[in-house]
Amino acid sequence: MTTISELLHQKADAIRAKDPKAMTAGYAPGAVIYNLAPPLRQLDDARDPQPAEQWLATFESQMNLEIRDLEITEEGDLAYATAIEGLSATPKGSTESFTLWYRVTYALRRIDGRWQITHEHQSVPFEMDGSFAASIHLEP
Amino acid sequence: MTTISELLHQKADAIRAKDPKAMTAGYAPGAVIYNLAPPLRQLDDARDPQPAEQWLATFESQMNLEIRDLEITEEGDLAYATAIEGLSATPKGSTESFTLWYRVTYALRRIDGRWQITHEHQSVPFEMDGSFAASIHLEP
Repeated sequence: MTTISELLHQKADAIRAKDPKAMTAGYAPGAVIYNLAPPLRQLDDARDPQPAEQWLATFESQMNLEIRDLEITEEGDLAYATAIEGLSATPKGSTESFTLWYRVTYALRRIDGRWQITHEHQSVPFEMDGSFAASIHLEP
Repeated sequence: MTTISELLHQKADAIRAKDPKAMTAGYAPGAVIYNLAPPLRQLDDARDPQPAEQWLATFESQMNLEIRDLEITEEGDLAYATAIEGLSATPKGSTESFTLWYRVTYALRRIDGRWQITHEHQSVPFEMDGSFAASIHLEP
């Protein structure tokens, strides 16, 4: 059986391979998604590969996702995981790549014998200096 | 025994009462905290009331925290919860109050017969229009 760590690394592999079906294969129906982008809660079905495909299309071909500080806690058929992820990509039409480090929380349930992501929360903090700028240059 | 819902509402009550000890009473040792403010991961012990006290001191006396869309999933001694929280406050020295709506994820473990917060992740998304501005004006 695929472990939670393997499932999360498969999602990273899927981004590297720019494979929207593999990117969305790990989600449970009705998953609660808090994304880097607005709104507060995502309205799309996380299992729908089309938004993932549109997102991938905004970048040049070379992409990478690194998972750091992964901590997984599981009991029975319930689990959660915390990590810092680093997304490296080049916006379409640009020649400059970026690496964005963000925090991510996953909650998972084992449904029909298979771990599935029931909740995902990705974010960067924001500056408390009055600028309300997203803190996109932090490093773990 | 205090339920998870009661525990999370007690934390909201503690902010209303500006009581730093009550605000920090629900956390487990070594809790992983991803805050609205940098860094990516909080370095303070979440059980330490002093940072909470300093944070409270940056606001005028009247504060409120509203919890919306709270969904709790528990199995055995492990649980997670998702919600949208609205913090209403007035910065010290200002006459204008604000309400900030943000997403929050909690993970909890029942330790010594008592639910304790082992992970908290609070965030707002950020604008994908090139401004990298934190999305502080979203409403649930």
